[in-house]
Amino acid sequence: MRRTVRTLADGREIIYFDDTAGAPERTAVDTRDLPRNETRSEIRRDPLTGEWVALAAHRQTRTYKPPAGLCPLCPTAPGRPTEVPEAEYDVVVFENRFPSFSQHAVGAVEPGLVPRGPGVGRCEVVCFTSDHTTSFGALSPQRVRTVVDVWADRTTALSAVPGVAQVFPFENRGDEIGVTLSHPHGQIYGYPFVTPRTERMLAVAEAAGGSVLGAVLAYERAEGTRVIAESAHWTAFVPAAARWPVEVHVVPHRQVPDLPALTPDERDDFAQIYLRVLGHLDGLHDRELPYIAAWHQAPVHVGRELSWLHLEVFSVLRAADKLKYLAGSESGMAVWINDVTPEDLAARLRSAPSRYGR
Amino acid sequence: MRRTVRTLADGREIIYFDDTAGAPERTAVDTRDLPRNETRSEIRRDPLTGEWVALAAHRQTRTYKPPAGLCPLCPTAPGRPTEVPEAEYDVVVFENRFPSFSQHAVGAVEPGLVPRGPGVGRCEVVCFTSDHTTSFGALSPQRVRTVVDVWADRTTALSAVPGVAQVFPFENRGDEIGVTLSHPHGQIYGYPFVTPRTERMLAVAEAAGGSVLGAVLAYERAEGTRVIAESAHWTAFVPAAARWPVEVHVVPHRQVPDLPALTPDERDDFAQIYLRVLGHLDGLHDRELPYIAAWHQAPVHVGRELSWLHLEVFSVLRAADKLKYLAGSESGMAVWINDVTPEDLAARLRSAPSRYGR
Repeated sequence: MRRTVRTLADGREIIYFDDTAGAPERTAVDTRDLPRNETRSEIRRDPLTGEWVALAAHRQTRTYKPPAGLCPLCPTAPGRPTEVPEAEYDVVVFENRFPSFSQHAVGAVEPGLVPRGPGVGRCEVVCFTSDHTTSFGALSPQRVRTVVDVWADRTTALSAVPGVAQVFPFENRGDEIGVTLSHPHGQIYGYPFVTPRTERMLAVAEAAGGSVLGAVLAYERAEGTRVIAESAHWTAFVPAAARWPVEVHVVPHRQVPDLPALTPDERDDFAQIYLRVLGHLDGLHDRELPYIAAWHQAPVHVGRELSWLHLEVFSVLRAADKLKYLAGSESGMAVWINDVTPEDLAARLRSAPSRYGR
Repeated sequence: MRRTVRTLADGREIIYFDDTAGAPERTAVDTRDLPRNETRSEIRRDPLTGEWVALAAHRQTRTYKPPAGLCPLCPTAPGRPTEVPEAEYDVVVFENRFPSFSQHAVGAVEPGLVPRGPGVGRCEVVCFTSDHTTSFGALSPQRVRTVVDVWADRTTALSAVPGVAQVFPFENRGDEIGVTLSHPHGQIYGYPFVTPRTERMLAVAEAAGGSVLGAVLAYERAEGTRVIAESAHWTAFVPAAARWPVEVHVVPHRQVPDLPALTPDERDDFAQIYLRVLGHLDGLHDRELPYIAAWHQAPVHVGRELSWLHLEVFSVLRAADKLKYLAGSESGMAVWINDVTPEDLAARLRSAPSRYGR
C-alpha cells in the first residue's frame, strides 16, 4: 500500500492509500477557490447526566443530497472539481469540510455547572472506492484489507492529535438513516472525550475485573444459535440482548484494544468474514440494507486493558418496508424495544442468500 | 372529574375520565369478537452495558397507519367498533393491545451472563380527546389539567402493579418519529426495571449529594438567555447542553418525585405554561412539530429523594424540512451532535408566534 499526503485548497489534509499496482503518482492540485471553513464547534457537559454533547452550528449548511453528477466524493473530472483532485483513486481520506470536531477549535474547558469547551478533535471522511455506484459489501477482499489498514493508520494518527480521547471509525449507509451522500464512504471521529457508551462498557468491565466480551464470545460460540459466521480469528453473531431489529457484532477471538493491534492475518480474515456478513445483511430483504457500522475501540489514554475491539453493525429496518423509530422509550428513557428476537434474526440471516454470491 | 372503570371484549381494562358536566354514564359494551392477545414479551440484560432490553416479537403485527375512518382511538360509531365503546369521551385510558410489557407475562428472572426474564409491566394508551383532528397544543387548559390528573392517577395505579419499577408517561407526536396513529394520544409505560437514562441521572445525583436539577433551574433562571416561559410554579427552558435541535425542559420550582406529588395549583399552572410552550413549538415552523414529550419521574422503590420530576420535550426537526437522524455518533457511541445552539433555539422559540394564539 502506498500512502501519499497532499493538501486541499483550503488547507485540509488529504491522504491517498493506493493498493493497485501501477497506480499513478498522486500529484493533482486542488484548483478550487475554497475559503477556509470557520469551525465554531463547542462541547458542553449535561449536568443531569454528566455526558458531553457537541454543538456544531456551522454544520447546518453542509452539503445535502447533491445529484450524482455533483458528488463531492467522486474523483475530479474536467471542469467538475470535487473534494478529491485526482481523476481516480483506490482509498482516500480527507478532513471533513464540515467537521463536528476540529484541531482548529481553540480555548480551554471552562468549569462550572455546565462545563464547556472547544470542540477539539478531528473528523475525517474515508472513501472506500472511486466507484460512486457500488457498496462496501461488493468490494474485493483485497480492498477491504486496505480499508482495515487505513482505519488502523488513521486510528494511530488521530490518537496522536492533542486532545483526542477516543477514535471512532464508522460507516452510515442508506437514506433511511439520513446519509446525505450516497458515494460509498465512512467517517472517522476523533472525540475530545470518552464516549458515553464506551464509558458505560468500561464501568461494567471494571466491576467485572476485565472485559466481559471474552465471556460473551465463549457463550455465543457455545450456544451457536445466534452465530452468523465464524472464521479462524473472528466470530459474527447476533447479540443475545440485541437492541436493533437487525444487529450483528463481529468480534476478534483475541483481546486487542484497537485496530492497529490486529495482525496481518487477523486483518485478512476480517475482510473475508465481514464481506460474508454484509452479503447476508444485504440479502435479508434483497436490497441494500440501511445500516450503521460502528467500531468500538479502546480510548486513547484510559481503560485500554479493559477494552476489546469489536464492530457493531445494526439497522433500523424492522421489515422490508418498515423502519424502527427511536421514539419515547428509546430517545426518552434509553430503553430499546425490539420487535425481532435475536434467535429469529440469526436464523433468517443465515438462510438469506448472499447478495454478492459469497 | 368522574372516573369509570370498564372492561374491553378481550379483558383489557378501559378507564373513562370525564371532565364535562353532564357527561353520560359510561355503560357502552365492547361488541367486538376480540381474541385475547398472546404476550411474548421478554427482557434481557446486555452483558456489555448492564442495560435491559425488551423483546416484543408480537408487536410486529401491530396496527400500522390506518386510514382516518378506521382509527382505533376514535369513539365507536354505528357499525364501526373501535377500542373505545362509547360514542364520545373526554379522556380515556386503556391497556395497549400490543404491549411491550404486560401483567400477564409469566416466569422468573433467570440469572447468567445474559440475565433474562418475563416482560412484566403494563402499557397503557391515553386518548386526550375524542376529536381525531386536533392536537395537544390546541386543548383547553381545563382539559390539560384533566390529563395531568389522569397521568397522576395512572402513575399511582401502575406503581402498585407488582414488578413495576418506573412509570413513564409520554407522547410521541408526528409521522417523522414513526407515530402509527395520528389521533391525539399518549402512552404510559410501567417498566420492570429502572431505565438506563434515569439510572444515569440517579448516579449523578448520588455523587452530588442530591438532585442537580435545582441548581440547573437556578442557573437557567439567573442566565435567562435560554428561558422560554416562566410561571408561579414552573420554568420552561432550553437546556444549556441540549442534545436535540429542538428541546425544552419544563421544570417545577419545588422538588417533587412524581406527578401524584403535585398540588392542584401546580397542576393548573402546568396546564397554562405547557400550552404556551406547545404554542411556540408548533409556531416555530408554523406546522405541527413532530415531538416526543417525556416525563421524568422517580422510580417506584429507589432514589426517590434524589429525583426531581420534570418534562423533556424534544424534536428531530432540525429545519422546517430537514430531520436530525441518530446515526453513527448518536446510535453507536451515544454522543449527540447538535447543529443548533441552545441560545439560538431559545431566541427563535420566544419570537415564534404561538400557533394557538396564546
